[in-house]
Amino acid sequence: MPKVAERYLEIDPYRIIEKGFHPEKNAVSESIFSLGNEYSGIRGFFEEGISLPSLIGTYYNGILEYALEDTPSAYKGIVKRTHFTINSTNYLKLRIEVDGQTLDLANVEIQDYERVLDMRNGLLTRRFRWKVGGQWIDVSFARLLSMTRPHLAYQRVSFKAEKDASLRISFHLDGTILHWGKHNYWEKGVAKENELYLRTPTTGQSLLTVEDIVAPVSCHAHRIEDKEVASFYEVRLPEQEEVCFERFVSAIASKSGASYEDLSPEAQSDLIQAKELGFAGLLKENEDFFSAHYAKSDIIIDGDASDQQGIRFCIFQMLSAFHGLEFGNNIGAKGLTGEAYSGHAFWDSETYCLPYYLFNDQEAAKSLLMFRYFTLPEARQRAFDLDCVGACYPIATRNGKEACTLWQHASTQLQPTSAVAYAIFHYMNLYDDEVFMKDYGAEMLGEIAKFLFSRGQWNAAHTHFGYYGVMGPDEFQLMVAHNAYTNFMGKKSMEYALSVLEDPRYGSPALLQKLGIDEAWKAKVREACDAMLILFDPKTNLFEQHKGYFDLPHIDIDQIPVEDFPLYSHWSYDRIYRNDMIKQPDVLMFLFLYNQDFPAEVIKANYEFYEPRCIHESSLSPSIHSILAAQIGKNKEAADFFGFATRLDLDDYNRNTCEGLHMTSIAAAWMNIVYGFLGLRSDRPVLKIAPTLPARWSHYGVKLTYRGLPLRFDVYEDHVDIESLEGTVALSYRDEIVYVEGKVRLCR
Amino acid sequence: MPKVAERYLEIDPYRIIEKGFHPEKNAVSESIFSLGNEYSGIRGFFEEGISLPSLIGTYYNGILEYALEDTPSAYKGIVKRTHFTINSTNYLKLRIEVDGQTLDLANVEIQDYERVLDMRNGLLTRRFRWKVGGQWIDVSFARLLSMTRPHLAYQRVSFKAEKDASLRISFHLDGTILHWGKHNYWEKGVAKENELYLRTPTTGQSLLTVEDIVAPVSCHAHRIEDKEVASFYEVRLPEQEEVCFERFVSAIASKSGASYEDLSPEAQSDLIQAKELGFAGLLKENEDFFSAHYAKSDIIIDGDASDQQGIRFCIFQMLSAFHGLEFGNNIGAKGLTGEAYSGHAFWDSETYCLPYYLFNDQEAAKSLLMFRYFTLPEARQRAFDLDCVGACYPIATRNGKEACTLWQHASTQLQPTSAVAYAIFHYMNLYDDEVFMKDYGAEMLGEIAKFLFSRGQWNAAHTHFGYYGVMGPDEFQLMVAHNAYTNFMGKKSMEYALSVLEDPRYGSPALLQKLGIDEAWKAKVREACDAMLILFDPKTNLFEQHKGYFDLPHIDIDQIPVEDFPLYSHWSYDRIYRNDMIKQPDVLMFLFLYNQDFPAEVIKANYEFYEPRCIHESSLSPSIHSILAAQIGKNKEAADFFGFATRLDLDDYNRNTCEGLHMTSIAAAWMNIVYGFLGLRSDRPVLKIAPTLPARWSHYGVKLTYRGLPLRFDVYEDHVDIESLEGTVALSYRDEIVYVEGKVRLCR
Repeated sequence: MPKVAERYLEIDPYRIIEKGFHPEKNAVSESIFSLGNEYSGIRGFFEEGISLPSLIGTYYNGILEYALEDTPSAYKGIVKRTHFTINSTNYLKLRIEVDGQTLDLANVEIQDYERVLDMRNGLLTRRFRWKVGGQWIDVSFARLLSMTRPHLAYQRVSFKAEKDASLRISFHLDGTILHWGKHNYWEKGVAKENELYLRTPTTGQSLLTVEDIVAPVSCHAHRIEDKEVASFYEVRLPEQEEVCFERFVSAIASKSGASYEDLSPEAQSDLIQAKELGFAGLLKENEDFFSAHYAKSDIIIDGDASDQQGIRFCIFQMLSAFHGLEFGNNIGAKGLTGEAYSGHAFWDSETYCLPYYLFNDQEAAKSLLMFRYFTLPEARQRAFDLDCVGACYPIATRNGKEACTLWQHASTQLQPTSAVAYAIFHYMNLYDDEVFMKDYGAEMLGEIAKFLFSRGQWNAAHTHFGYYGVMGPDEFQLMVAHNAYTNFMGKKSMEYALSVLEDPRYGSPALLQKLGIDEAWKAKVREACDAMLILFDPKTNLFEQHKGYFDLPHIDIDQIPVEDFPLYSHWSYDRIYRNDMIKQPDVLMFLFLYNQDFPAEVIKANYEFYEPRCIHESSLSPSIHSILAAQIGKNKEAADFFGFATRLDLDDYNRNTCEGLHMTSIAAAWMNIVYGFLGLRSDRPVLKIAPTLPARWSHYGVKLTYRGLPLRFDVYEDHVDIESLEGTVALSYRDEIVYVEGKVRLCR
Repeated sequence: MPKVAERYLEIDPYRIIEKGFHPEKNAVSESIFSLGNEYSGIRGFFEEGISLPSLIGTYYNGILEYALEDTPSAYKGIVKRTHFTINSTNYLKLRIEVDGQTLDLANVEIQDYERVLDMRNGLLTRRFRWKVGGQWIDVSFARLLSMTRPHLAYQRVSFKAEKDASLRISFHLDGTILHWGKHNYWEKGVAKENELYLRTPTTGQSLLTVEDIVAPVSCHAHRIEDKEVASFYEVRLPEQEEVCFERFVSAIASKSGASYEDLSPEAQSDLIQAKELGFAGLLKENEDFFSAHYAKSDIIIDGDASDQQGIRFCIFQMLSAFHGLEFGNNIGAKGLTGEAYSGHAFWDSETYCLPYYLFNDQEAAKSLLMFRYFTLPEARQRAFDLDCVGACYPIATRNGKEACTLWQHASTQLQPTSAVAYAIFHYMNLYDDEVFMKDYGAEMLGEIAKFLFSRGQWNAAHTHFGYYGVMGPDEFQLMVAHNAYTNFMGKKSMEYALSVLEDPRYGSPALLQKLGIDEAWKAKVREACDAMLILFDPKTNLFEQHKGYFDLPHIDIDQIPVEDFPLYSHWSYDRIYRNDMIKQPDVLMFLFLYNQDFPAEVIKANYEFYEPRCIHESSLSPSIHSILAAQIGKNKEAADFFGFATRLDLDDYNRNTCEGLHMTSIAAAWMNIVYGFLGLRSDRPVLKIAPTLPARWSHYGVKLTYRGLPLRFDVYEDHVDIESLEGTVALSYRDEIVYVEGKVRLCR
């Protein structure tokens, strides 16, 4: 499946630049030029609207609705009503008319178009010249979302005419947007001049959006409807003189459904602060935010400017989607940049996204874990619904409840649950955060172990334990028995939980009593772990992906015609599942997660067996392959699988960036460099590195924070420089421990 | 799971009698007192309406609609829009008022209530005394559906007052009935006095209902609405004098959507005939129809009057649902007695229903097969949709298209296809109908073999062939490999197809060319059949239900609490599938179908292994177990599994008879006696019997037609009488051939 870059943006280390308007890429650009501050996200749509395919999208983290209808055939344990992040009030909407001509870039003559997203401050600007009558009007837009004052957004539009002209412009707060272009989920609340307060019907949440428009003339009319308010201005554009409008917006989303009266004072006070700071003040705060992050968390690439731009875009978008602003947030598969995947977070949060935060921001990492702590009640309910005990974490969720209505995924994929155990293990391995473990981690692990034990089964002869009727990470094999990943991770998760619960610091009598865990239960779990069937053949060093996998009909995946992809659209659904083709790493996935448990020859044997069977129908798949390829010395393959991982969205490789950015793929790109090329391993107490240098790069540097200490790695053709300016760090390099204090140079 | 009879009807050999009104059984009675003539069916609801749970249902064979909405997540091969038999015009509707009091049996005082269905003529009568004011009014109803003039129905209602009273009565043709109580699928067409013509929107079918009301007074008013017409009458009920109304109805359902103008003359001419015949004439024709059938096809039971009544009810309902009236009809799981199962036919038609017709009416049997011939185009399309070739017969259908929206059934259950091959084999074994095979059977077999070969796969090592990702008849194991039933039936079906196609009488060059079958293909199919993996262990004589089944976690099904049933409602959906519990016979099913291929010790070993694992969550399951138990000498178990199979609906064992009759269970009851107690086997050229006598019966007789010759078996404690009055029949009895001509007595 050769994927082809559709590059239309300019290369620049810190900026995303569209030079000349690309109407055919309008919806793709809307995704790429999205802004987010974790609290909310807004797509890069044109504020004035456009007669082209477009997704006007504004999303608030945790503002959700339930589906209008029940899932058909919702047998017990099948999700009856799904939930999703809903498209919300568009507070950037403008309507612009000069001398009677409406601004619509699909229908007017323009020149010198340029749109720029500056990743040093999150400022999105756009400028062009617009032909109206016999003259050109300079139009420029700017917008930003405050990274530090999450309610605040800023918008500016200015005009300069060659000759006197007449401008009519209206500013809207538009709550009538259709989610997926189909249905508006909001109920009317309060609509006033410059204020719109709406409610969600089934979740009882609320959203207040207030604006302060700074205009050169006073507003000549307001239009107030149930879910949209507008302010109308008419002004002369004097010859060669810039006329500028600014809008300060405060939007407060209340998950508990606070009333208009409760939210209004805060929103108004926000606005006052915003206006005091002004555009320059807000911009400065954003600059400070990003420069602080880049100072400790950055990747520098020499030798390929497009990769450099790509990885910066990844880091910028990671920070925009999530940076530990608020407990209870998580990272949707599309961040806050689109409606695809419904705003749901997956096990990708722990497996692909967490490492970035672990190495850059302990609080953010902890916040991701805390999402799972706060949603323990829903996970307990889910386990109960599945006739199990303990806590079963959902495949897809935003509010903690399972949102995936496909039972063949939601009822059989146990990896979200084992991923939480792994995430706690991973976090503890780096931070040894006793308080976290005592207050939260141990309880989660106890509930996880209870679930994993209750979902497991002994075989008929009671000689081995394992999971029946599961789907592993490879979603092309369903209802299998003894999936190697599920069994292995189940064993690891339960063993880790037992070790924590037996640690007197964590497994207090009170906690054990709360969990209903006693010695007899622990013994049974230990017995199950010891008997866990791991299908490994020491003769071949191969793990069998599940019982019977090796006997499955073989497909030569290279013979599948390109036009058959994506297979879900072109192959009969059942056909996908009855052969040895795999969608994404499964055995290789646990070989990555518990990498240091396995000798290189085991990794090599399994890589060489499974890689040719994998079609990478998930954008997360190549990175794991790249990381393991680098580990076993297949540098060419490592580079090939890396491809342009950092630019999946910038170059619209998957042809679906229009629906939103691929957040976990963005995180995987970071992992690909750090775990792949730099060879970092963090699954044992001592951090390990094994740097390689992709042929097309002359050098790369990785800045990260390790246990609170800033570290910098610079990898060159023949050596590696490691810098630790604030303390001594022990690293494992080529099976030896290297103590880094200040700057150390290692040969490669 | 002890099931308890809820007996409330009187026992009588030829009549179903409700003495005293049972309001709590109202909807159950509506099903039991259904009338049908294959062309249409009408539930036994009260024509005057009632304020109790009720399903007013009238259904026409083949009159369908498509669902209002698409199936969610309809990936390729998953049914996008299902179809179903729709509830149609209620032509029996009356509204009755005497002296201002409305007749509603839920709200009036009555006595001497009796309802009787006479199975000798299909006449349904009801009478009671109704207290109005200070007097009792005798009310009686009668209705019938003509078995020989399928458009015609007759209704009568009469009143006799003790004292002078005033009657208001209206006769309606009501096309506003809601299907499933939710949606009316009909579009208005023509509504006139005594005529209602409606259309279906997505299938373009039509239904004209015309009536002729014979009343003692002339109609004083008509009301004509879009989908309902009514005629109003007012009459004095003179003291002690019977006042009678009759309604003759002709209803013509046009699958091709004929216009009102096209249908009207035929309907009017039907009505004229009906009135000429009158009630007595119509009743006489029905009597002749049933007595002709009972003369050649009956079961007589001495020793248990309830079984006698039960099996008569089964035969009566089989004839009502289907008797070969018209090519293109089939037998819905609920016949024409309810909306459950959407009027769909399943593989039960070939597997459970066909034997009754094979032994009673060749033309009816052939008609069932012809349904599959006429729907070859849809089966070809279905195979194509599943990325296969040939013809894949649907799990559930009425129009030939797959109607089951659950991919885990529709895309993976191959037994409808192999059941058609088996049905052809079975039919040919009894009738050796060269014309049928040449004109229809061979083509179907060729297409079936093409499908079964294309759906099969070679294992990775190319050492065996079989089916991956399937569900066998046991619906509690899904996406399994090498299901023994599927592999065995696949092999048998393909081998039979090859043998037919290689027979010069059938496999003409023209047909082979049409099928695209050549020698190379045949060689490949033969190779696949030879390599078909049949998981059989000669040491234990056990077939493994699928690869890995023996390793599945074991459940002691006797430990499952009664309140957990039905499991689909009480167990998490995935949990049902991950243990060795089975829902219905799977290995035992092919041991039944190809019974004479297997020695008794194999049947015994498998029966003893699988029976304790089977929870019989299908009403079809006990009969197969009873049949095989009888074969291996487990007479007590055979009798226990037979239970009151003939009375499943009469005694509402499954508590869901209110939704309609269990047609295939009704057919299975017949099979249970004939294949079970009588020990008939018809899977080899010579018919075999091995009679046993259940302890609670002193004698039973079976009348059937074998290759055109009427046969009668009478089984007593110590002997069996066999009668063949029209020719010589060779039978296998205790491994010897017995030639029966006239009457033969065999010792038992």
